[in-house]
Amino acid sequence: MEAPAIAPAELRALLDKQAISEVVLRYCRGIDRMDRELVRSCYHPDASDSHGSFEGSREEFLAWVWRLLERYESSMHLVGNLLVEPVGDVARAETYGIAFHRGRSEDPRLNLVTGFRYVDRFERRAGEWRIARRVAVTEWVRQDDPARRWPIPAGMRRGARDASDAIYEVLSHS
Amino acid sequence: MEAPAIAPAELRALLDKQAISEVVLRYCRGIDRMDRELVRSCYHPDASDSHGSFEGSREEFLAWVWRLLERYESSMHLVGNLLVEPVGDVARAETYGIAFHRGRSEDPRLNLVTGFRYVDRFERRAGEWRIARRVAVTEWVRQDDPARRWPIPAGMRRGARDASDAIYEVLSHS
Amino acid sequence: MEAPAIAPAELRALLDKQAISEVVLRYCRGIDRMDRELVRSCYHPDASDSHGSFEGSREEFLAWVWRLLERYESSMHLVGNLLVEPVGDVARAETYGIAFHRGRSEDPRLNLVTGFRYVDRFERRAGEWRIARRVAVTEWVRQDDPARRWPIPAGMRRGARDASDAIYEVLSHS
Repeated sequence: MEAPAIAPAELRALLDKQAISEVVLRYCRGIDRMDRELVRSCYHPDASDSHGSFEGSREEFLAWVWRLLERYESSMHLVGNLLVEPVGDVARAETYGIAFHRGRSEDPRLNLVTGFRYVDRFERRAGEWRIARRVAVTEWVRQDDPARRWPIPAGMRRGARDASDAIYEVLSHS
Repeated sequence: MEAPAIAPAELRALLDKQAISEVVLRYCRGIDRMDRELVRSCYHPDASDSHGSFEGSREEFLAWVWRLLERYESSMHLVGNLLVEPVGDVARAETYGIAFHRGRSEDPRLNLVTGFRYVDRFERRAGEWRIARRVAVTEWVRQDDPARRWPIPAGMRRGARDASDAIYEVLSHS
Repeated sequence: MEAPAIAPAELRALLDKQAISEVVLRYCRGIDRMDRELVRSCYHPDASDSHGSFEGSREEFLAWVWRLLERYESSMHLVGNLLVEPVGDVARAETYGIAFHRGRSEDPRLNLVTGFRYVDRFERRAGEWRIARRVAVTEWVRQDDPARRWPIPAGMRRGARDASDAIYEVLSHS
Protein backbone atom coordinates (compact mmCIF):
# COMPACT_ATOMS: atom_id res chain seq x y z
CA MET A 1 0.00 0.00 0.00
CA GLU A 2 1.10 3.54 -0.78
CA ALA A 3 2.16 5.57 2.24
CA PRO A 4 -0.23 8.49 2.82
CA ALA A 5 0.87 11.85 1.40
CA ILE A 6 2.12 14.45 3.88
CA ALA A 7 0.00 17.50 4.62
CA PRO A 8 1.81 20.64 5.83
CA ALA A 9 -0.64 20.81 8.75
CA GLU A 10 0.64 17.43 9.93
CA LEU A 11 4.19 18.72 10.00
CA ARG A 12 3.10 21.89 11.76
CA ALA A 13 1.38 19.80 14.45
CA LEU A 14 4.51 17.69 14.83
CA LEU A 15 6.70 20.76 15.31
CA ASP A 16 4.22 22.21 17.80
CA LYS A 17 4.15 19.00 19.82
CA GLN A 18 7.94 18.93 19.88
CA ALA A 19 8.18 22.56 20.96
CA ILE A 20 5.66 22.00 23.75
CA SER A 21 7.32 18.80 24.92
CA GLU A 22 10.64 20.60 25.16
CA VAL A 23 9.12 23.28 27.37
CA VAL A 24 8.03 20.55 29.79
CA LEU A 25 11.51 19.02 29.73
CA ARG A 26 13.21 22.39 30.20
CA TYR A 27 10.92 22.98 33.17
CA CYS A 28 12.17 19.75 34.78
CA ARG A 29 15.77 20.69 34.06
CA GLY A 30 15.22 24.15 35.48
CA ILE A 31 13.74 22.77 38.70
CA ASP A 32 16.35 20.05 39.20
CA ARG A 33 19.33 22.27 38.39
CA MET A 34 17.69 25.21 40.18
CA ASP A 35 17.93 27.43 37.14
CA ARG A 36 15.28 30.02 37.92
CA GLU A 37 15.35 31.80 34.58
CA LEU A 38 14.85 28.52 32.77
CA VAL A 39 11.75 27.71 34.83
CA ARG A 40 10.42 31.24 34.38
CA SER A 41 10.82 31.01 30.59
CA CYS A 42 8.44 28.03 30.48
CA TYR A 43 5.44 30.19 31.50
CA HIS A 44 3.71 33.15 29.95
CA PRO A 45 4.01 36.19 32.22
CA ASP A 46 0.31 35.99 33.19
CA ALA A 47 0.29 32.20 33.67
CA SER A 48 -1.11 30.53 36.77
CA ASP A 49 -0.02 27.36 38.53
CA SER A 50 -1.96 25.07 40.86
CA HIS A 51 0.55 22.84 42.58
CA GLY A 52 -0.61 20.79 45.54
CA SER A 53 -1.50 23.27 48.24
CA PHE A 54 -0.22 26.18 46.14
CA GLU A 55 -2.22 28.32 43.73
CA GLY A 56 -0.88 31.51 42.24
CA SER A 57 0.87 33.42 39.49
CA ARG A 58 4.15 32.61 37.80
CA GLU A 59 6.17 34.84 40.11
CA GLU A 60 4.38 33.57 43.20
CA PHE A 61 5.01 30.00 42.07
CA LEU A 62 8.70 30.67 41.55
CA ALA A 63 9.02 32.16 45.03
CA TRP A 64 7.11 29.27 46.60
CA VAL A 65 8.87 26.45 44.80
CA TRP A 66 12.32 27.94 45.39
CA ARG A 67 11.70 27.95 49.13
CA LEU A 68 10.83 24.26 48.87
CA LEU A 69 13.76 23.36 46.64
CA GLU A 70 16.21 24.91 49.06
CA ARG A 71 15.19 22.36 51.70
CA TYR A 72 16.36 19.53 49.48
CA GLU A 73 19.82 18.41 48.69
CA SER A 74 18.58 17.28 45.30
CA SER A 75 15.46 16.61 43.29
CA MET A 76 14.80 14.56 40.16
CA HIS A 77 11.65 15.02 38.11
CA LEU A 78 11.50 12.09 35.75
CA VAL A 79 8.70 12.39 33.22
CA GLY A 80 7.29 9.88 30.78
CA ASN A 81 3.97 9.97 28.88
CA LEU A 82 3.89 13.36 27.19
CA LEU A 83 0.65 13.62 25.23
CA VAL A 84 0.19 16.96 23.49
CA GLU A 85 -2.98 17.95 21.67
CA PRO A 86 -2.70 21.28 19.86
CA VAL A 87 -5.79 23.04 18.52
CA GLY A 88 -4.65 26.15 16.70
CA ASP A 89 -2.78 28.37 19.16
CA VAL A 90 -3.91 26.44 22.24
CA ALA A 91 -2.85 22.97 23.33
CA ARG A 92 -3.59 20.49 26.05
CA ALA A 93 -0.52 18.70 27.34
CA GLU A 94 -0.56 15.90 29.86
CA THR A 95 2.68 14.65 31.37
CA TYR A 96 3.16 11.74 33.78
CA GLY A 97 6.05 11.88 36.19
CA ILE A 98 7.79 10.71 39.35
CA ALA A 99 9.62 13.19 41.57
CA PHE A 100 12.41 12.03 43.87
CA HIS A 101 13.35 14.39 46.69
CA ARG A 102 16.33 14.03 48.97
CA GLY A 103 16.13 16.26 52.02
CA ARG A 104 18.95 18.07 53.75
CA SER A 105 17.92 16.06 56.81
CA GLU A 106 16.33 12.67 57.45
CA ASP A 107 12.96 14.36 58.08
CA PRO A 108 10.58 12.01 56.28
CA ARG A 109 8.57 14.94 54.89
CA LEU A 110 11.67 15.93 52.96
CA ASN A 111 12.38 12.45 51.63
CA LEU A 112 9.32 11.72 49.57
CA VAL A 113 8.76 10.16 46.19
CA THR A 114 5.63 11.35 44.43
CA GLY A 115 3.72 10.22 41.36
CA PHE A 116 2.13 13.15 39.55
CA ARG A 117 0.69 14.46 36.35
CA TYR A 118 1.18 17.92 34.92
CA VAL A 119 -1.99 18.97 33.16
CA ASP A 120 -1.14 22.03 31.12
CA ARG A 121 -2.85 24.52 28.91
CA PHE A 122 -0.26 25.82 26.48
CA GLU A 123 -0.75 28.91 24.37
CA ARG A 124 1.25 30.10 21.40
CA ARG A 125 1.85 33.81 21.54
CA ALA A 126 4.14 35.66 19.15
CA GLY A 127 5.15 32.28 17.79
CA GLU A 128 6.21 30.84 21.13
CA TRP A 129 4.53 28.04 23.07
CA ARG A 130 4.52 28.45 26.84
CA ILE A 131 2.39 27.30 29.76
CA ALA A 132 -0.66 29.51 30.31
CA ARG A 133 -2.17 27.35 33.04
CA ARG A 134 -0.75 24.37 34.91
CA VAL A 135 -2.52 22.00 37.27
CA ALA A 136 -0.25 19.51 39.01
CA VAL A 137 -2.21 16.40 39.95
CA THR A 138 -0.88 14.14 42.72
CA GLU A 139 -1.27 10.40 42.09
CA TRP A 140 0.56 9.00 45.11
CA VAL A 141 3.13 9.93 47.75
CA ARG A 142 5.64 7.54 49.28
CA GLN A 143 8.16 8.01 52.00
CA ASP A 144 11.64 6.98 51.13
CA ASP A 145 13.06 4.34 53.47
CA PRO A 146 16.38 5.76 54.69
CA ALA A 147 17.60 2.28 55.57
CA ARG A 148 17.40 1.28 51.91
CA ARG A 149 19.12 4.33 50.54
CA TRP A 150 22.69 3.72 49.53
CA PRO A 151 25.28 6.42 49.57
CA ILE A 152 26.55 7.31 46.12
CA PRO A 153 30.07 5.86 46.07
CA ALA A 154 32.89 8.38 46.16
CA GLY A 155 34.28 9.05 42.71
CA MET A 156 30.90 8.74 41.02
CA ARG A 157 29.74 11.75 39.14
CA ARG A 158 26.57 13.12 40.72
CA GLY A 159 24.10 15.85 39.83
CA ALA A 160 24.71 19.45 40.85
CA ARG A 161 22.64 22.60 41.06
CA ASP A 162 25.26 24.92 39.64
CA ALA A 163 27.58 25.25 36.69
CA SER A 164 29.50 22.15 37.76
CA ASP A 165 26.72 19.84 36.54
CA ALA A 166 27.74 17.65 33.61
CA ILE A 167 25.20 19.17 31.23
CA TYR A 168 27.09 22.44 31.15
CA GLU A 169 30.23 20.76 29.83
CA VAL A 170 28.95 18.81 26.87
CA LEU A 171 29.24 21.49 24.23
CA SER A 172 32.33 23.15 25.63
CA HIS A 173 34.67 20.37 24.49
CA SER A 174 35.65 19.88 20.87
CA MET B 1 29.33 20.49 7.12
CA GLU B 2 26.10 20.77 5.18
CA ALA B 3 23.07 19.31 6.95
CA PRO B 4 21.71 16.32 5.03
CA ALA B 5 18.77 17.02 2.68
CA ILE B 6 15.35 15.86 3.82
CA ALA B 7 13.69 12.95 2.05
CA PRO B 8 9.88 12.76 2.16
CA ALA B 9 10.17 9.18 3.39
CA GLU B 10 11.98 10.44 6.48
CA LEU B 11 9.13 12.79 7.30
CA ARG B 12 6.59 10.04 6.67
CA ALA B 13 8.45 7.78 9.11
CA LEU B 14 8.53 10.57 11.67
CA LEU B 15 4.77 11.12 11.40
CA ASP B 16 4.14 7.39 11.65
CA LYS B 17 6.27 7.09 14.77
CA GLN B 18 4.44 10.00 16.35
CA ALA B 19 1.02 8.56 15.50
CA ILE B 20 1.98 5.17 16.93
CA SER B 21 3.47 6.69 20.08
CA GLU B 22 0.28 8.62 20.67
CA VAL B 23 -1.78 5.44 20.49
CA VAL B 24 0.36 3.98 23.28
CA LEU B 25 -0.10 7.13 25.36
CA ARG B 26 -3.85 7.23 24.73
CA TYR B 27 -4.01 3.60 25.84
CA CYS B 28 -2.40 4.57 29.18
CA ARG B 29 -4.77 7.49 29.57
CA GLY B 30 -7.73 5.30 28.76
CA ILE B 31 -6.74 2.71 31.35
CA ASP B 32 -5.91 5.20 34.11
CA ARG B 33 -9.00 7.35 33.56
CA MET B 34 -11.10 4.23 32.86
CA ASP B 35 -12.23 5.54 29.49
CA ARG B 36 -13.26 2.33 27.79
CA GLU B 37 -13.85 3.78 24.35
CA LEU B 38 -10.41 5.34 24.38
CA VAL B 39 -8.76 2.00 25.14
CA ARG B 40 -10.90 0.24 22.53
CA SER B 41 -9.87 2.77 19.87
CA CYS B 42 -6.20 1.81 20.30
CA TYR B 43 -6.76 -1.67 18.85
CA HIS B 44 -7.93 -2.95 15.51
CA PRO B 45 -11.20 -4.87 15.90
CA ASP B 46 -9.45 -8.22 15.29
CA ALA B 47 -6.46 -7.45 17.51
CA SER B 48 -5.23 -9.82 20.20
CA ASP B 49 -3.62 -9.11 23.55
CA SER B 50 -1.40 -11.29 25.71
CA HIS B 51 -1.28 -9.73 29.13
CA GLY B 52 0.18 -11.73 31.99
CA SER B 53 -2.15 -14.63 32.50
CA PHE B 54 -4.62 -13.27 29.96
CA GLU B 55 -4.73 -14.04 26.25
CA GLY B 56 -7.63 -13.03 24.06
CA SER B 57 -9.33 -10.67 21.66
CA ARG B 58 -9.84 -6.94 22.04
CA GLU B 59 -13.28 -7.31 23.54
CA GLU B 60 -12.19 -10.10 25.86
CA PHE B 61 -9.26 -7.97 26.98
CA LEU B 62 -11.50 -5.01 27.71
CA ALA B 63 -13.85 -7.15 29.81
CA TRP B 64 -10.92 -8.73 31.69
CA VAL B 65 -8.98 -5.55 32.38
CA TRP B 66 -12.08 -3.64 33.45
CA ARG B 67 -12.80 -6.24 36.11
CA LEU B 68 -9.25 -5.75 37.40
CA LEU B 69 -9.37 -1.96 37.25
CA GLU B 70 -12.52 -1.87 39.32
CA ARG B 71 -10.64 -3.45 42.22
CA TYR B 72 -8.28 -0.50 42.34
CA GLU B 73 -8.85 2.95 43.65
CA SER B 74 -6.39 4.23 41.07
CA SER B 75 -3.73 3.15 38.61
CA MET B 76 -0.88 4.98 36.94
CA HIS B 77 0.86 3.58 33.87
CA LEU B 78 3.99 5.64 33.42
CA VAL B 79 5.82 4.82 30.20
CA GLY B 80 9.25 5.80 28.98
CA ASN B 81 11.34 4.30 26.17
CA LEU B 82 9.05 4.27 23.16
CA LEU B 83 10.97 2.81 20.24
CA VAL B 84 8.93 2.50 17.06
CA GLU B 85 10.19 0.83 13.91
CA PRO B 86 7.78 1.15 10.98
CA VAL B 87 8.23 -0.98 7.87
CA GLY B 88 5.57 0.08 5.39
CA ASP B 89 2.17 -0.51 6.94
CA VAL B 90 3.48 -2.59 9.83
CA ALA B 91 5.51 -1.42 12.79
CA ARG B 92 7.21 -2.85 15.82
CA ALA B 93 6.80 -0.72 18.92
CA GLU B 94 8.45 -1.40 22.24
CA THR B 95 7.46 0.61 25.31
CA TYR B 96 8.97 0.41 28.78
CA GLY B 97 6.75 1.24 31.74
CA ILE B 98 6.00 1.11 35.44
CA ALA B 99 2.45 0.56 36.67
CA PHE B 100 1.39 1.74 40.13
CA HIS B 101 -1.79 0.20 41.52
CA ARG B 102 -3.59 1.31 44.63
CA GLY B 103 -6.16 -1.20 45.84
CA ARG B 104 -9.50 -0.49 47.40
CA SER B 105 -8.16 -2.47 50.37
CA GLU B 106 -4.74 -3.12 51.88
CA ASP B 107 -4.65 -6.55 50.25
CA PRO B 108 -1.03 -6.71 49.06
CA ARG B 109 -2.07 -8.32 45.76
CA LEU B 110 -3.91 -5.09 44.97
CA ASN B 111 -1.03 -2.82 45.93
CA LEU B 112 1.65 -3.81 43.49
CA VAL B 113 4.12 -1.88 41.40
CA THR B 114 5.18 -3.63 38.22
CA GLY B 115 7.87 -3.04 35.64
CA PHE B 116 6.76 -4.06 32.16
CA ARG B 117 7.26 -3.72 28.46
CA TYR B 118 4.56 -3.50 25.85
CA VAL B 119 5.74 -5.24 22.72
CA ASP B 120 3.34 -4.27 19.98
CA ARG B 121 2.73 -5.04 16.37
CA PHE B 122 1.03 -2.02 14.86
CA GLU B 123 -0.71 -2.06 11.51
CA ARG B 124 -1.86 0.86 9.41
CA ARG B 125 -5.26 0.19 7.93
CA ALA B 126 -7.29 2.82 6.05
CA GLY B 127 -4.62 5.32 7.07
CA GLU B 128 -4.87 4.65 10.79
CA TRP B 129 -2.25 3.02 13.00
CA ARG B 130 -3.60 0.75 15.72
CA ILE B 131 -2.39 -2.24 17.71
CA ALA B 132 -2.84 -5.53 15.86
CA ARG B 133 -1.06 -7.66 18.45
CA ARG B 134 0.17 -6.79 21.92
CA VAL B 135 2.37 -8.83 24.22
CA ALA B 136 2.83 -7.37 27.70
CA VAL B 137 6.12 -8.55 29.18
CA THR B 138 6.58 -8.47 32.96
CA GLU B 139 10.02 -7.38 34.16
CA TRP B 140 9.44 -7.28 37.91
CA VAL B 141 6.69 -7.06 40.50
CA ARG B 142 7.01 -5.32 43.86
CA GLN B 143 4.64 -5.06 46.73
CA ASP B 144 3.99 -1.58 47.93
CA ASP B 145 4.82 -1.08 51.62
CA PRO B 146 1.65 0.39 53.17
CA ALA B 147 3.68 1.81 56.06
CA ARG B 148 5.60 4.00 53.63
CA ARG B 149 2.61 5.29 51.75
CA TRP B 150 1.61 8.80 52.67
CA PRO B 151 -1.92 10.00 52.38
CA ILE B 152 -2.35 12.69 49.76
CA PRO B 153 -2.87 15.85 51.80
CA ALA B 154 -6.38 17.28 51.75
CA GLY B 155 -6.68 20.14 49.31
CA MET B 156 -4.30 18.56 46.82
CA ARG B 157 -5.70 17.91 43.41
CA ARG B 158 -5.70 14.18 42.72
CA GLY B 159 -6.47 12.02 39.71
CA ALA B 160 -10.01 10.89 38.98
CA ARG B 161 -11.64 8.29 36.77
CA ASP B 162 -14.45 10.48 35.57
CA ALA B 163 -15.10 13.87 34.02
CA SER B 164 -13.77 15.61 37.13
CA ASP B 165 -10.16 14.80 36.22
CA ALA B 166 -8.08 17.88 35.43
CA ILE B 167 -7.42 16.83 31.82
CA TYR B 168 -11.05 17.44 30.91
CA GLU B 169 -10.84 21.08 31.95
CA VAL B 170 -7.80 22.31 30.10
CA LEU B 171 -9.44 23.31 26.84
CA SER B 172 -12.71 24.45 28.33
CA HIS B 173 -11.27 27.69 29.73
CA SER B 174 -10.35 30.61 27.55
CA MET C 1 -4.01 33.40 14.11
CA GLU C 2 -2.14 31.90 11.17
CA ALA C 3 0.08 28.96 12.07
CA PRO C 4 3.75 29.85 11.50
CA ALA C 5 5.27 28.69 8.20
CA ILE C 6 7.63 25.73 8.29
CA ALA C 7 11.32 26.26 7.71
CA PRO C 8 13.34 23.30 6.37
CA ALA C 9 15.83 23.84 9.20
CA GLU C 10 13.05 23.14 11.70
CA LEU C 11 12.32 19.80 10.06
CA ARG C 12 16.01 18.96 9.92
CA ALA C 13 16.29 19.65 13.66
CA LEU C 14 13.26 17.47 14.31
CA LEU C 15 14.74 14.57 12.34
CA ASP C 16 18.07 15.00 14.12
CA LYS C 17 16.40 14.95 17.53
CA GLN C 18 14.49 11.81 16.61
CA ALA C 19 17.61 10.06 15.31
CA ILE C 20 19.53 10.93 18.46
CA SER C 21 16.68 9.87 20.76
CA GLU C 22 16.52 6.52 19.02
CA VAL C 23 20.22 5.93 19.62
CA VAL C 24 19.60 6.39 23.35
CA LEU C 25 16.67 3.98 23.23
CA ARG C 26 18.62 1.41 21.22
CA TYR C 27 21.38 1.68 23.80
CA CYS C 28 18.89 0.74 26.55
CA ARG C 29 17.54 -2.13 24.49
CA GLY C 30 21.05 -3.34 23.76
CA ILE C 31 22.00 -3.32 27.45
CA ASP C 32 18.79 -4.96 28.68
CA ARG C 33 18.70 -7.63 25.98
CA MET C 34 22.51 -7.98 26.14
CA ASP C 35 22.89 -7.30 22.44
CA ARG C 36 26.51 -6.23 22.29
CA GLU C 37 26.55 -5.13 18.67
CA LEU C 38 23.53 -2.92 19.28
CA VAL C 39 25.26 -1.15 22.18
CA ARG C 40 28.49 -0.83 20.17
CA SER C 41 26.61 0.78 17.25
CA CYS C 42 25.46 3.63 19.51
CA TYR C 43 29.00 5.00 19.89
CA HIS C 44 31.55 6.36 17.46
CA PRO C 45 34.66 4.15 17.42
CA ASP C 46 36.71 6.77 19.28
CA ALA C 47 33.98 7.62 21.82
CA SER C 48 34.62 7.71 25.55
CA ASP C 49 32.31 6.83 28.43
CA SER C 50 32.42 7.93 32.06
CA HIS C 51 30.15 5.64 33.99
CA GLY C 52 30.30 5.71 37.76
CA SER C 53 33.71 4.40 38.68
CA PHE C 54 34.49 3.57 35.06
CA GLU C 55 36.20 5.81 32.51
CA GLY C 56 37.38 4.54 29.17
CA SER C 57 36.93 3.93 25.47
CA ARG C 58 34.01 2.28 23.74
CA GLU C 59 35.64 -1.14 23.71
CA GLU C 60 36.76 -0.83 27.32
CA PHE C 61 33.24 0.21 28.31
CA LEU C 62 31.71 -2.77 26.55
CA ALA C 63 34.07 -5.17 28.29
CA TRP C 64 33.42 -3.55 31.67
CA VAL C 65 29.65 -3.33 31.41
CA TRP C 66 29.31 -6.88 30.07
CA ARG C 67 31.11 -8.22 33.14
CA LEU C 68 28.58 -6.35 35.29
CA LEU C 69 25.56 -7.42 33.27
CA GLU C 70 26.49 -11.06 33.59
CA ARG C 71 26.08 -10.82 37.37
CA TYR C 72 22.43 -9.89 36.93
CA GLU C 73 19.51 -12.04 36.04
CA SER C 74 17.93 -9.03 34.39
CA SER C 75 18.17 -5.27 34.04
CA MET C 76 15.69 -2.63 32.96
CA HIS C 77 16.80 0.85 31.97
CA LEU C 78 13.67 2.96 31.84
CA VAL C 79 14.31 6.43 30.46
CA GLY C 80 12.12 9.51 30.38
CA ASN C 81 13.07 13.15 29.75
CA LEU C 82 15.07 13.10 26.54
CA LEU C 83 16.12 16.65 25.75
CA VAL C 84 18.25 16.96 22.63
CA GLU C 85 19.86 20.20 21.50
CA PRO C 86 21.59 19.92 18.12
CA VAL C 87 23.96 22.65 16.93
CA GLY C 88 25.08 21.72 13.43
CA ASP C 89 26.84 18.37 13.58
CA VAL C 90 27.11 18.32 17.37
CA ALA C 91 24.33 17.87 19.90
CA ARG C 92 23.85 17.85 23.62
CA ALA C 93 21.44 15.17 24.81
CA GLU C 94 20.29 14.74 28.37
CA THR C 95 18.30 11.66 29.38
CA TYR C 96 16.77 10.91 32.77
CA GLY C 97 16.38 7.29 33.79
CA ILE C 98 15.87 4.63 36.42
CA ALA C 99 17.75 1.34 36.24
CA PHE C 100 16.38 -1.79 37.93
CA HIS C 101 18.85 -4.60 38.52
CA ARG C 102 17.98 -8.08 39.69
CA GLY C 103 21.00 -10.04 40.83
CA ARG C 104 21.68 -13.73 40.39
CA SER C 105 21.83 -13.82 44.18
CA GLU C 106 20.25 -11.88 47.04
CA ASP C 107 23.48 -9.91 47.48
CA PRO C 108 22.14 -6.38 48.06
CA ARG C 109 24.87 -4.87 45.88
CA LEU C 110 23.34 -6.74 42.96
CA ASN C 111 19.78 -5.69 43.71
CA LEU C 112 19.91 -1.97 43.37
CA VAL C 113 17.66 0.60 41.78
CA THR C 114 19.44 3.73 40.58
CA GLY C 115 18.30 7.12 39.36
CA PHE C 116 20.65 8.51 36.72
CA ARG C 117 21.12 10.92 33.88
CA TYR C 118 22.98 10.26 30.67
CA VAL C 119 24.68 13.45 29.57
CA ASP C 120 25.82 12.89 26.02
CA ARG C 121 27.73 14.69 23.35
CA PHE C 122 26.50 13.39 20.03
CA GLU C 123 28.30 13.96 16.77
CA ARG C 124 27.06 13.45 13.24
CA ARG C 125 29.69 11.86 11.06
CA ALA C 126 29.03 10.63 7.53
CA GLY C 127 25.37 11.43 8.14
CA GLU C 128 25.04 9.29 11.27
CA TRP C 129 24.49 10.51 14.81
CA ARG C 130 26.29 8.55 17.51
CA ILE C 131 27.61 9.18 20.99
CA ALA C 132 31.04 10.81 21.01
CA ARG C 133 31.21 11.31 24.77
CA ARG C 134 28.93 10.04 27.52
CA VAL C 135 28.91 11.00 31.18
CA ALA C 136 26.53 8.96 33.34
CA VAL C 137 25.48 10.99 36.37
CA THR C 138 24.16 9.16 39.44
CA GLU C 139 21.23 10.83 41.19
CA TRP C 140 20.41 8.23 43.83
CA VAL C 141 20.90 4.56 44.66
CA ARG C 142 18.40 2.40 46.51
CA GLN C 143 18.58 -1.15 47.68
CA ASP C 144 15.71 -3.30 46.64
CA ASP C 145 13.89 -4.90 49.57
CA PRO C 146 13.84 -8.64 48.83
CA ALA C 147 10.86 -9.11 51.16
CA ARG C 148 8.76 -6.85 48.97
CA ARG C 149 9.71 -8.44 45.69
CA TRP C 150 7.05 -10.70 44.28
CA PRO C 151 7.88 -13.62 42.08
CA ILE C 152 6.59 -13.21 38.55
CA PRO C 153 3.69 -15.68 38.39
CA ALA C 154 4.26 -18.75 36.25
CA GLY C 155 2.72 -18.38 32.84
CA MET C 156 3.51 -14.69 32.62
CA ARG C 157 5.69 -13.65 29.75
CA ARG C 158 8.94 -12.20 31.05
CA GLY C 159 11.92 -10.48 29.48
CA ALA C 160 14.81 -12.49 28.05
CA ARG C 161 18.36 -11.76 26.97
CA ASP C 162 18.29 -13.86 23.85
CA ALA C 163 16.21 -14.42 20.72
CA SER C 164 13.30 -15.68 22.81
CA ASP C 165 12.40 -12.13 23.93
CA ALA C 166 9.05 -10.92 22.64
CA ILE C 167 10.56 -8.08 20.60
CA TYR C 168 12.11 -10.53 18.17
CA GLU C 169 8.73 -11.99 17.26
CA VAL C 170 6.70 -8.91 16.41
CA LEU C 171 7.58 -8.60 12.76
CA SER C 172 7.86 -12.31 12.05
CA HIS C 173 4.11 -12.92 12.13
CA SER C 174 1.83 -11.80 9.35
